[in-house]
Amino acid sequence: MVSSNNSIGHTMHQWASDLYPICRSITGNGVRQTLDYFKNILPDLKIHEVLSGTRAFDWVVPDEWNITNAYVADEQGNKIIDFQLHNLHIVGYSEPIDKIIPFEELDKHLHSLPDQPDAIPFITSYYKRRWGFCITDRQRQALRQNPEARYHVKIDSTLAPGNLTYGELIIPGKSEKEILLSTYICHPSMANDDLSGPCVTAALAQWIKNELSNRQNTYRILFITETIGSIYYLSKHHQEMKKNTIAGFVLTCMGDDNVYSYVPSRTGYTLADQVAQQALKHHTSNYIAYTFLDRGSDERQYCSPGIDLPVCSVMRSKYGAYPEYHTSLDDLSFISPVGLKGSYEVMQKCIELIEKNVVYRSTTLCEPQLGKRGLYPNLSTKESKNIAFNMMNLIAYADGKNDLINISEKMGTYAGDLEPLVTALLEHNLLEVVDQ
Amino acid sequence: MVSSNNSIGHTMHQWASDLYPICRSITGNGVRQTLDYFKNILPDLKIHEVLSGTRAFDWVVPDEWNITNAYVADEQGNKIIDFQLHNLHIVGYSEPIDKIIPFEELDKHLHSLPDQPDAIPFITSYYKRRWGFCITDRQRQALRQNPEARYHVKIDSTLAPGNLTYGELIIPGKSEKEILLSTYICHPSMANDDLSGPCVTAALAQWIKNELSNRQNTYRILFITETIGSIYYLSKHHQEMKKNTIAGFVLTCMGDDNVYSYVPSRTGYTLADQVAQQALKHHTSNYIAYTFLDRGSDERQYCSPGIDLPVCSVMRSKYGAYPEYHTSLDDLSFISPVGLKGSYEVMQKCIELIEKNVVYRSTTLCEPQLGKRGLYPNLSTKESKNIAFNMMNLIAYADGKNDLINISEKMGTYAGDLEPLVTALLEHNLLEVVDQ
Amino acid sequence: MVSSNNSIGHTMHQWASDLYPICRSITGNGVRQTLDYFKNILPDLKIHEVLSGTRAFDWVVPDEWNITNAYVADEQGNKIIDFQLHNLHIVGYSEPIDKIIPFEELDKHLHSLPDQPDAIPFITSYYKRRWGFCITDRQRQALRQNPEARYHVKIDSTLAPGNLTYGELIIPGKSEKEILLSTYICHPSMANDDLSGPCVTAALAQWIKNELSNRQNTYRILFITETIGSIYYLSKHHQEMKKNTIAGFVLTCMGDDNVYSYVPSRTGYTLADQVAQQALKHHTSNYIAYTFLDRGSDERQYCSPGIDLPVCSVMRSKYGAYPEYHTSLDDLSFISPVGLKGSYEVMQKCIELIEKNVVYRSTTLCEPQLGKRGLYPNLSTKESKNIAFNMMNLIAYADGKNDLINISEKMGTYAGDLEPLVTALLEHNLLEVVDQ
Repeated sequence: MVSSNNSIGHTMHQWASDLYPICRSITGNGVRQTLDYFKNILPDLKIHEVLSGTRAFDWVVPDEWNITNAYVADEQGNKIIDFQLHNLHIVGYSEPIDKIIPFEELDKHLHSLPDQPDAIPFITSYYKRRWGFCITDRQRQALRQNPEARYHVKIDSTLAPGNLTYGELIIPGKSEKEILLSTYICHPSMANDDLSGPCVTAALAQWIKNELSNRQNTYRILFITETIGSIYYLSKHHQEMKKNTIAGFVLTCMGDDNVYSYVPSRTGYTLADQVAQQALKHHTSNYIAYTFLDRGSDERQYCSPGIDLPVCSVMRSKYGAYPEYHTSLDDLSFISPVGLKGSYEVMQKCIELIEKNVVYRSTTLCEPQLGKRGLYPNLSTKESKNIAFNMMNLIAYADGKNDLINISEKMGTYAGDLEPLVTALLEHNLLEVVDQ
Repeated sequence: MVSSNNSIGHTMHQWASDLYPICRSITGNGVRQTLDYFKNILPDLKIHEVLSGTRAFDWVVPDEWNITNAYVADEQGNKIIDFQLHNLHIVGYSEPIDKIIPFEELDKHLHSLPDQPDAIPFITSYYKRRWGFCITDRQRQALRQNPEARYHVKIDSTLAPGNLTYGELIIPGKSEKEILLSTYICHPSMANDDLSGPCVTAALAQWIKNELSNRQNTYRILFITETIGSIYYLSKHHQEMKKNTIAGFVLTCMGDDNVYSYVPSRTGYTLADQVAQQALKHHTSNYIAYTFLDRGSDERQYCSPGIDLPVCSVMRSKYGAYPEYHTSLDDLSFISPVGLKGSYEVMQKCIELIEKNVVYRSTTLCEPQLGKRGLYPNLSTKESKNIAFNMMNLIAYADGKNDLINISEKMGTYAGDLEPLVTALLEHNLLEVVDQ
Repeated sequence: MVSSNNSIGHTMHQWASDLYPICRSITGNGVRQTLDYFKNILPDLKIHEVLSGTRAFDWVVPDEWNITNAYVADEQGNKIIDFQLHNLHIVGYSEPIDKIIPFEELDKHLHSLPDQPDAIPFITSYYKRRWGFCITDRQRQALRQNPEARYHVKIDSTLAPGNLTYGELIIPGKSEKEILLSTYICHPSMANDDLSGPCVTAALAQWIKNELSNRQNTYRILFITETIGSIYYLSKHHQEMKKNTIAGFVLTCMGDDNVYSYVPSRTGYTLADQVAQQALKHHTSNYIAYTFLDRGSDERQYCSPGIDLPVCSVMRSKYGAYPEYHTSLDDLSFISPVGLKGSYEVMQKCIELIEKNVVYRSTTLCEPQLGKRGLYPNLSTKESKNIAFNMMNLIAYADGKNDLINISEKMGTYAGDLEPLVTALLEHNLLEVVDQ
């Protein structure tokens, strides 16, 4: 593993803690504050604004939403629901209101989860004008004790032409071939979905820039709004991305300590899928392999027909598959420095495997004479024959067509374990790189 | 299911009852009477006659066989075996005889089944001149008690140049693409093999003509003699059939109440195989999947090398796999209105699946915005995301290459369940049909 | 099976017994004596000499090694280790020495197997100058009782420019297509690895020459040194071999009575692999299927990238997988006439399957009328239908693309069992051979 202590885990967790209170949505100042925070970490991050009304394939960039205050007060003026106490209390994209209404009418605008009586749900209405409040079901039941009460409902929000905001960071490599890292920054005050994703992505971006200095590939790293963000971005860039992208990952739900998850690309057989599965098999104790039918984030766009990018996801607890998902229970206590660091390191392994993934060809017909190069024992005993066997197998499959990942799959080994063998064979000019 | 009550089952069973007494063979008046009966039901059925001696690939149309009477009488003139009592008493294609012979000689011309002592076997000798009688083994053992008796053997039959007769019904659709339904009408007085086949075929033909009025495909429906009938027909039509046929089915053994059976085409992966398996999985409680090595009817010709039509079989109890097969026990009590109706409905489903099987392409890159069209909930809650998920999956695989059957296989769903989704997406111009 | 008694087994075992005392190595007079012995059996065997220093791909033919005497004597002149008693006492390619040394120094040059205290190990040092003796671990422990003793170490060997020697036998067939049989003759005084290999190969060569007189294929039969021998041979012949070889086998470890073994080619799907697996399934009670990763002999060269020959191995106990391997315990008692004969017969079956493996096409569209040719019962009863069914299946797959081996795999039968059917169908002109 890369870091000997868990400082990177604590760093990521601190970032998540700093960003947790911000009220993010798919547009608005919460997104801008979040991107500004990451620009401090990643000075090369470019922040783009896209005007409301801009078309993107079948979609149109919606009006921008901002909110400064919202509450429900009883007849005595007590704020019984207060947006200042939790961002999730407000339905995302709620329109402004300032009205006194009976409980019966208020109740139609309340959302709660009977099965999770202590959780505030995360509810949005991006594309239809609504207003609403989210509360625990316990509170809602208490309010229902007093059906005759009247309430002052106040939402100080604006819904008006503005911008969709996103961050883009291109870290160039030697090659035009690209690896896509895409994360989203549109959820308010939830830790695993979504803060864990951008925090791991930012840490990876620092590592790629500063430590992966010999990188072959170019990295396209996106901090965007889910769905409309990726759709807009693809509408601008899909042709170049389709040409250059050799692997991509959607980074989300990476912070908890539970077993890992993997959601494949549409075909399931891309380089991204190969390295994700190898890294998970080798570097975690276990993981759940979902199918493409279980997808739920921006791979929906990246893998759509005609776009067809090789994008999969490595997660801890998958969105939709843990009870805290999309509620106030997905808070900072649900993620941990250790959980974040585990995801970060698995992604590092994926990237390292891709960086090292080259098509090799043996420079000689038949086996080379390893013994004269000190790569094979020159005393032949019963035991000696197996010692250099992995090296022999690597040469046997280095036919100028199989890349290192494919060779490792044929050998039943972890591709990362082949690196010292490749290094030795390259040093002795027994392998050559095949340009592709 | 199509019919709310079982009137169609009773109708088919009545047809089988009407046709049961006729002495059919591979040629002759029994075939003509049977075809005339179906022409009453299907006025467009064309009845063709092919002269004896006509060549068809490696075969030659044999002489026509007709029989009016046959019996074995004892010395007192008692008819101890009487063709009038059961058509199966006579070996098919028996030559005429009128002779008094000792039991020892008669016994050489008797056929019975020691393992099924109460069954009269079905025996034929189409291509070698013979005569013979089939009886229960119980009767044969009784006759053997009197080895010295002499018997009058009488067969009033003719074997002479005549015709091979078959019925052909072409029901045109919008497209030249064809679906083949092939059944055989050459077995005397047996209910499951073969009367169930032509009765289900006739009911399907009525339904295709009258109710499947919006059909895309053309239907080629054959009532033929097994083997020589299909070989002759292919020798005349195989080039056009090879060009147009997208799926075909041999219809036989469809009347009993036992578990369903499926015999694949030679490759096992044709459209016919796909829909047969989907319909059986979805609309029956269970079925036995045989291999192509278990085939036994006209798919032997349709799937032969160089012909290579995409033809499989959906059955109830498969020929050769039930003890009543090819005996007098395969009588009208072995089939039932419910059994016939089940097969009829599975075949309807196969046909409907093919009719609806189109290659679609999403009209937009990335996912379309379903919400603005009322196809996706515009309030995003924990539960809402799965509601429109099948629609999303359908779009995700609508890449202009996969047809609906292939998409449903990738989605792990029944293709029939996708029809309302396809309808909705077509209405909103979110899918387009790809011409192939 | 070919031979009704086991005379061929005894013959092969006698050959092994005659050859057992010779001190073979990768070069030298032991190899020449061995090849001379086989030239007596196979007069057409050509013996080739290749000068030391000759380059072969990444390798260079080493100096020739010969040895006449070697011993270790105690201070009383008693020979306590004597090469005359067992060839394995000397490390292969030991340089000459004549010196009195203390036990402490001698011990550094001794090799034994603590886990097999009664076995003399087989040790070599072909490519680095060394000297050494191999003894049982029991003897070594006894010598260690007397650590102060001094010993006279004497090795009468020569290591000097000379030749690499190998034997080559080409048995022509009607076609230029070739079957490769490759065995090695470089191990001293061990019976299963390697004498069983050349003895079975020689018996097969006699049989091919004398009894397989109608053979289609040309046979390239090599008696070579492992590794350097096959590498040199390929460096001279790989282009013609790549062009002509349709199947090949490395013959080794074929003499014991244990369960059979199979090591596939690199792809695992060549004609050699198909026939090896069919012959083993049909003609042995069981076999262990290894993977290409378990390989260890000259298939390492034949299957290397760029060479890519279709070569696999059929063995009894596989090299490295039995405790006697590469020790003095792999002696003449470890192999048996029955064990050798079993391997010989499996290889005969492999060769016969290849000789008979032709691509056939049915000469008629639809099924031919087998009945009129006496190939199908002309009385159709419940039982008769299955009798000619294998013949029908064979015709059904004879599409001009599948060869007989592929057809047998589709039919789930042993290809050898199809030969009488093929013969009958050819006689009746119902199949034709497709040139390829």
